Amino acid sequence: MPPQFTFHRRIRFSDTDMAGIVHFANFYRFMEEAEHEMFRSLDARIVEDQPDGSVVGWPRVRASCSFEAPARYDDLIAIDIWITRIGVKSLTMSFKFRLGQTQIAHGELKTVFCRFQRDGKFESIPIPAEFTDKLTECPRATDDE
Amino acid sequence: MPPQFTFHRRIRFSDTDMAGIVHFANFYRFMEEAEHEMFRSLDARIVEDQPDGSVVGWPRVRASCSFEAPARYDDLIAIDIWITRIGVKSLTMSFKFRLGQTQIAHGELKTVFCRFQRDGKFESIPIPAEFTDKLTECPRATDDE
Amino acid sequence: MPPQFTFHRRIRFSDTDMAGIVHFANFYRFMEEAEHEMFRSLDARIVEDQPDGSVVGWPRVRASCSFEAPARYDDLIAIDIWITRIGVKSLTMSFKFRLGQTQIAHGELKTVFCRFQRDGKFESIPIPAEFTDKLTECPRATDDE
Amino acid sequence: MPPQFTFHRRIRFSDTDMAGIVHFANFYRFMEEAEHEMFRSLDARIVEDQPDGSVVGWPRVRASCSFEAPARYDDLIAIDIWITRIGVKSLTMSFKFRLGQTQIAHGELKTVFCRFQRDGKFESIPIPAEFTDKLTECPRATDDE
Repeated sequence: MPPQFTFHRRIRFSDTDMAGIVHFANFYRFMEEAEHEMFRSLDARIVEDQPDGSVVGWPRVRASCSFEAPARYDDLIAIDIWITRIGVKSLTMSFKFRLGQTQIAHGELKTVFCRFQRDGKFESIPIPAEFTDKLTECPRATDDE
Repeated sequence: MPPQFTFHRRIRFSDTDMAGIVHFANFYRFMEEAEHEMFRSLDARIVEDQPDGSVVGWPRVRASCSFEAPARYDDLIAIDIWITRIGVKSLTMSFKFRLGQTQIAHGELKTVFCRFQRDGKFESIPIPAEFTDKLTECPRATDDE
Repeated sequence: MPPQFTFHRRIRFSDTDMAGIVHFANFYRFMEEAEHEMFRSLDARIVEDQPDGSVVGWPRVRASCSFEAPARYDDLIAIDIWITRIGVKSLTMSFKFRLGQTQIAHGELKTVFCRFQRDGKFESIPIPAEFTDKLTECPRATDDE
Repeated sequence: MPPQFTFHRRIRFSDTDMAGIVHFANFYRFMEEAEHEMFRSLDARIVEDQPDGSVVGWPRVRASCSFEAPARYDDLIAIDIWITRIGVKSLTMSFKFRLGQTQIAHGELKTVFCRFQRDGKFESIPIPAEFTDKLTECPRATDDE
């Protein structure tokens, strides 16, 4: 199955650490950048103001990444992204990081659709059909496991 | 003149870059950490909710830093901070970074007291006397140059 | 079982994002800081120059984190760390993040002991007994699964 | 005078802080990204291995930035860069940050050309003519002030 989206990211000097390679925590930021660019490609917004003054968005439930080979300064990596599960309120995405022909890492990110109140509190809510309609090739789940 | 406050900061692995030293942009984060710990020592808050639903805080006007010697992983650096100018709406602070007996960097940060509205817009307002009263040893200015 | 080590971490302004909470990718940096402070408590170094000019260290194999409740600016969180598996060449650690009485996140980090050559290449090597001897309460594994 | 180079940068979610705007320390990383892309446009490398095993690069001497208006998530900012001074061993660059028609910040970065030895020590050395020849439109200085 081809990825839903591929994001290309230049490795910056500030992404590296004293081991001369990309610091592992930055791969989670790269996942998020790929997720947001995929949302953009779907004409969907990751954060959206609502008429009632609340804001809806996608807090993270869980993220994992396995590191197979290092990325270094100035590398142009490719990040493939697949939506692997659409729950009622949650979304799970898989990621494959590539440098040329080599897979260098793979990861997973589970997010949940939430409404943020002005006091900073937030609660999960069902993902609107307008959004899931944009993901027609993806198999649906009817629960959030 | 002794510093108003000294903050000690352990250099973390993720603060370094592939040159094996602290990435220069992190010194500005360290300045902010020292500023906030000085505020804490004065029992002052850097961000404060107001009764009318607005929030007051200290956006940055200008920050500079000169780098004299590198800091490396696991170094325990000392950051001296002085408030060098109190304007009607602005505050200017100077910083000296030390590693043991060696000065490794020095910097300056100018901030301005602002009220943030719920729509994200903000405007500068006079610094309240309750705050400046906590800074009695510091010479006052009557303008914001 | 009590944690092997507990690390206390003040949440910094630059750790937050526009949702008003700690950006999720920073929890992986916090894990690393807790790991390094646990190493320090064992009088062990995370990076060590060898007589032959090589350097030994602990690249990451895999890291995951589940987010249960947000952390916010100025929170003082506690990070409990347990070494849950010692392989021939790898180490697996578990983490529990707490804010007061509330568990806010939990994670896992698997690392592998490696020798870095001057050209930047590295290979996994057995963890020296001097190190594992410092971890006597921890059950051993004889493979790296 | 037109800029030597203009770099376009998408603001990422992790670039923001709880004030809802880009954290000020990130503008220094953006300057560096613009600098490196300008180097790339000149077919010059920011870090270069030498035949004798040493590495040459550009440590920072001083960086300053003035903040005029905020940048927010998803903004596509433009960063104009000018080399304003070429010394024997140092380079000074000016930066203008723009969002649409609005200038949001401006900064300056002074770097010095250095050779790094394997033990991590480094010393400044004259900038090679091969590099400065690529900057023909820029006025030269014969000292490093």
